[in-house]
Amino acid sequence: MNFTVSQLGTALDQALREAIDNKTKPRGSLGALERVALQVGRIQRSLSPRFNHPTLLVFAADHGAAKAGLSAYPQDVTWQMVENYLAGGAGVNVFARQNGLAVKVIDAGVAHDFGARPKLIDAKISPTGTRNYLDEAAMTREQCAAAIESAAEIVRELAASGCNLLAVGEMGIGNTASAALLTHVFTGAPLDACVGRGTGLDDAGLARKRERLAQAVARARLPANVDALDALAEFGGFEIAMMTGALLAGAEGRMTLLIDGFIASSALLAAARIAPAIRDYCVFCHCSAEPGHREQLRALGGEPLLDLGLRLGEGTGAALAYPLVCSALALLNEMASFASANVSKNIR
Amino acid sequence: MNFTVSQLGTALDQALREAIDNKTKPRGSLGALERVALQVGRIQRSLSPRFNHPTLLVFAADHGAAKAGLSAYPQDVTWQMVENYLAGGAGVNVFARQNGLAVKVIDAGVAHDFGARPKLIDAKISPTGTRNYLDEAAMTREQCAAAIESAAEIVRELAASGCNLLAVGEMGIGNTASAALLTHVFTGAPLDACVGRGTGLDDAGLARKRERLAQAVARARLPANVDALDALAEFGGFEIAMMTGALLAGAEGRMTLLIDGFIASSALLAAARIAPAIRDYCVFCHCSAEPGHREQLRALGGEPLLDLGLRLGEGTGAALAYPLVCSALALLNEMASFASANVSKNIR
Repeated sequence: MNFTVSQLGTALDQALREAIDNKTKPRGSLGALERVALQVGRIQRSLSPRFNHPTLLVFAADHGAAKAGLSAYPQDVTWQMVENYLAGGAGVNVFARQNGLAVKVIDAGVAHDFGARPKLIDAKISPTGTRNYLDEAAMTREQCAAAIESAAEIVRELAASGCNLLAVGEMGIGNTASAALLTHVFTGAPLDACVGRGTGLDDAGLARKRERLAQAVARARLPANVDALDALAEFGGFEIAMMTGALLAGAEGRMTLLIDGFIASSALLAAARIAPAIRDYCVFCHCSAEPGHREQLRALGGEPLLDLGLRLGEGTGAALAYPLVCSALALLNEMASFASANVSKNIR
Repeated sequence: MNFTVSQLGTALDQALREAIDNKTKPRGSLGALERVALQVGRIQRSLSPRFNHPTLLVFAADHGAAKAGLSAYPQDVTWQMVENYLAGGAGVNVFARQNGLAVKVIDAGVAHDFGARPKLIDAKISPTGTRNYLDEAAMTREQCAAAIESAAEIVRELAASGCNLLAVGEMGIGNTASAALLTHVFTGAPLDACVGRGTGLDDAGLARKRERLAQAVARARLPANVDALDALAEFGGFEIAMMTGALLAGAEGRMTLLIDGFIASSALLAAARIAPAIRDYCVFCHCSAEPGHREQLRALGGEPLLDLGLRLGEGTGAALAYPLVCSALALLNEMASFASANVSKNIR
């Protein structure tokens, strides 16, 4: 597990700030867009950053714990939704298509045989999904490392083809439970604050989810300073471990990383434990309605662009926020300056 | 002043809700987008609403009170920025171009002679801008009615050409002061809560602005139930009166109305006093950093899509939020249903 993620340099900061401040607008009046413009300028080490081959990777996998009544949907929905992604009909397809993001779908370990499919990247870590963390570790440490490395390799290939913007999304029935456990472990927030209704549990379902996840925490007895791989292996989904590897390789390749919601942020928490500087590369796209996402954002210091009550996952929040990130670049690349437009500057 | 704005019917509501709920996602998981999808479906009376010729109108005018030290910028910036709009270099141009909105610029009363310009709609109510409301009413009631009617005519022509989505934006040095006065009058909120730093006043400038606007309120002595035209005539800018007319004609023509920030919402407050049902047609695009905008949103019952600390005006917030509004339509038009994608529904 060897990723070199550099903290962003500040050599261009003054020039970027001047470029932003000299655009024809009151200073600071484009709010969060100015922050994102500065950030992407620093990532790309450029006063005129551009996105090339922007890509959203959707990782799918099944969870051994999903059959324990942790979700409002049956486990078969994981593979059925993969078919939906391949057919282009899911939310993430629709919003990515609208906004010009390429979507690639990765089978990280769905309990279903898709056969050879031209648009599906087969990276199954196990043909049956993870084991049930209510009884035992979800995966071996070797499986976890393989998932991280496999996703990293996919992202390195994207980087080699010129891609410099990466979003990650996911599908896996039961994966808000897995993300809740990881969030509890990585942030230290109380477990109950990390557990939400996922795809739509009722009150009784939520109470049951909290109870079972507390049992899993008690069984595993992870130390507070647990290694990211050990935590992912204990509670992870394969899709979450792969997202961790994808984000690490993306930051290593100086890509701008679009962070989606609760599941993606659980992968980022793992990645940040391995390489804390990764946060410099992250644009936090939205604040999920899943309550644990606020705990994650607090721990990561993330300021999300959108707060629309989204809780669909798949990378939809990243796809929806992407136009705003492009607007931040358009600010730098296309807006006139006071000088170029012959507009008077402020009086003071 | 005769606008027929119908409350939206609910005949299609059940079919729209079913269409939204049957898309392949947990019910409610696309949050505010689902609300917007329902709203635009009701406006267009369609289960598959589409936007045609989406247009953003930028109204510009000068303010007699602007020379009283109410802004951080000199009054000449109004006409200089109009030139910037015509050249395509301002924020609103950049974001509208990115997102596929046509921009039209209207001279509502800029104190500058532009000559005949192919891309500028000359609708000057006065060649010198409004009078100074610190001393007297900003305009006559007849000028106010002419501004409203002139903008309404522009929008009726847009409607005749097939446009069904209208955003309005503005430029006018000093117009946050005018909007603050109107907000105080229309919402009843304390004046100080309606007055902000505008383009960037310092503490002393803000105190001076509050003091002078309190003098204007004391001079005018408008009754609490003041007629919209009387209030606009007293404190308005011509650009604000024209935006009022544009929004009223847009709602009359069953257009979806994208509401920008503090100035646009002051025009909407006036329009809502004339035709309260106009709120049904409004998508509130963002919450401005100008503090009085929250007072307006509260009075109008508006739930904004974005909260990015924007305070540029021009319609930039509407242009930036427009892709999200399109995403709401894409949800309805392009997402697969559980049945069409053969995905299992939830267990309960």
